Amino acid sequence: MSKKEKPKNLIDGRKISRQVKEEVKEKIEELKKLHGKSPGLAVIIVGDRPDSRTYVNMKKKACAFVGIESFERKLEVDVTQEELLKVVREYNENPEINGILVQLPLPKHIDEEEVLSQISLTKDVDGFSPYNIGKCAMKGRDPLFFPCTPYGCIQLLKRSNVEISGKEAVIIGRSNIVGLPVSFLLLKENATITICHSRTKDIASTVKRADIIIAAVGIPKFVKAEWVKEGAVIIDVGINSVEDKTRKSGRRLVGDVDFENVKEKASLITPVPGGVGPMTVAMLMVNTLRGFERTLESEQKEKEKEEEK
Amino acid sequence: MSKKEKPKNLIDGRKISRQVKEEVKEKIEELKKLHGKSPGLAVIIVGDRPDSRTYVNMKKKACAFVGIESFERKLEVDVTQEELLKVVREYNENPEINGILVQLPLPKHIDEEEVLSQISLTKDVDGFSPYNIGKCAMKGRDPLFFPCTPYGCIQLLKRSNVEISGKEAVIIGRSNIVGLPVSFLLLKENATITICHSRTKDIASTVKRADIIIAAVGIPKFVKAEWVKEGAVIIDVGINSVEDKTRKSGRRLVGDVDFENVKEKASLITPVPGGVGPMTVAMLMVNTLRGFERTLESEQKEKEKEEEK
Repeated sequence: MSKKEKPKNLIDGRKISRQVKEEVKEKIEELKKLHGKSPGLAVIIVGDRPDSRTYVNMKKKACAFVGIESFERKLEVDVTQEELLKVVREYNENPEINGILVQLPLPKHIDEEEVLSQISLTKDVDGFSPYNIGKCAMKGRDPLFFPCTPYGCIQLLKRSNVEISGKEAVIIGRSNIVGLPVSFLLLKENATITICHSRTKDIASTVKRADIIIAAVGIPKFVKAEWVKEGAVIIDVGINSVEDKTRKSGRRLVGDVDFENVKEKASLITPVPGGVGPMTVAMLMVNTLRGFERTLESEQKEKEKEEEK
Repeated sequence: MSKKEKPKNLIDGRKISRQVKEEVKEKIEELKKLHGKSPGLAVIIVGDRPDSRTYVNMKKKACAFVGIESFERKLEVDVTQEELLKVVREYNENPEINGILVQLPLPKHIDEEEVLSQISLTKDVDGFSPYNIGKCAMKGRDPLFFPCTPYGCIQLLKRSNVEISGKEAVIIGRSNIVGLPVSFLLLKENATITICHSRTKDIASTVKRADIIIAAVGIPKFVKAEWVKEGAVIIDVGINSVEDKTRKSGRRLVGDVDFENVKEKASLITPVPGGVGPMTVAMLMVNTLRGFERTLESEQKEKEKEEEK
């Protein structure tokens, strides 16, 4: 079996993310015609980690494609917390900016939680604030923004016509940025959810009962074919760099799922790379557009109030 | 088998709640000696629903027992939202008050979500705000207050020496006030959690795998003996009033679990009444004390700052 052969049961994240971005682009063009303005996304980057730079560039490229104005503030690695907070506050006040991202991780001397908590809730397009996560979990409540990666997972399922309601979803990993919020979004879609983690006693048999598996544990090829029920749908959130002497770079990216073996049992499966990865940036574009639409709506309401006077 | 016979595997919520309240009382006496003041809990009650009155009286009685000052504001059923919010704000400002409860349900013309959102987070002893629920769910974060009933469930387990870490917990029901937050607290205790609900396809076999069952669905005797694994621990959150012609009142309270049959298979089980019910008020006392302690801590810090100057 050649590794190059593309399995038929692949969920193509690149293709779906392109669709999403094209929809965003179209909507933004429409709104620009109507209101004469475009959404803005600001990124604050501290220091010069090459991985952070790569992510920020991906985000800027996506912004350029969909028609979102990019703002960027590069701060030195020894910036003080107060200086960083000043930039956050400035962006909070700037009406041209609908979304604010602080590129993580931050240097150790900065209180990350405190900085993130200072981003205005209406501009927190990452959607990681406790307030937003609470609303992701709560019945009958909607968050201001669905966190990007979990939101991307749900879009991959929906746009591949996977029925979620009533299905058994098993989520491996309980991180604040993927495992937990993706569980809540699946619950909102009426899945029966099981969250397992490092303390789970029999992970193989827990995963075995899943109709939908979300692997978000950060361990290369963690999920084995024997754990997977025939016909399950698998979303692999892992992005792990492993040694590969056949590559020029000496490394390659693999997911949390033993893809080569698991794909034989799955009815649908995301590859790594090219699965969940491209969706995160696409959903960030969706969230920034959402923030922009909400701003337009409240401006509209203000205007109507003024006219009533 | 006589119904009067007390099974040996009973978790006695009345006894445990009394222990909790005695611990709170002792701590409050200690703090009063040190600081010359006591915690305060304010209840806002709108209209005169007899069930609301009963709950409020239970809370006041518990306050009197543990040494918490009770404040109460009774508002007419046709109170405006603005008048109600004014009372909330007044209590937010009052330094003698460490906890604020708005007795639910509110009349239909009041926006319940809006009113609850106006309670200061540091006095929201019910712990139902999205911010607080988010922190209940998130790894490495602690809420300001654990919601009372879910917190009570965890205390029943812990004080009965039930090991939670690594156990399979199945929660039936996903309400914002019990099902969801109790799931999060169990996850924080390292259980593998499964949340099931009305859309769950095979609830019997889902429940069957549980080491710990939390029934919070609001349907009398919903959980059957055949669904329960031998030796499971069962926490029954349901309080349902059903017809009973043998009683003077013609009614009696039953839980969400078919107690008479399930108790034969459970290693431990809570009765209804006398299980989870009494714990809710006890944990409200714990939360009010917690709010008071936090106030004392920040007063202490302020004082130290002053002295440094």
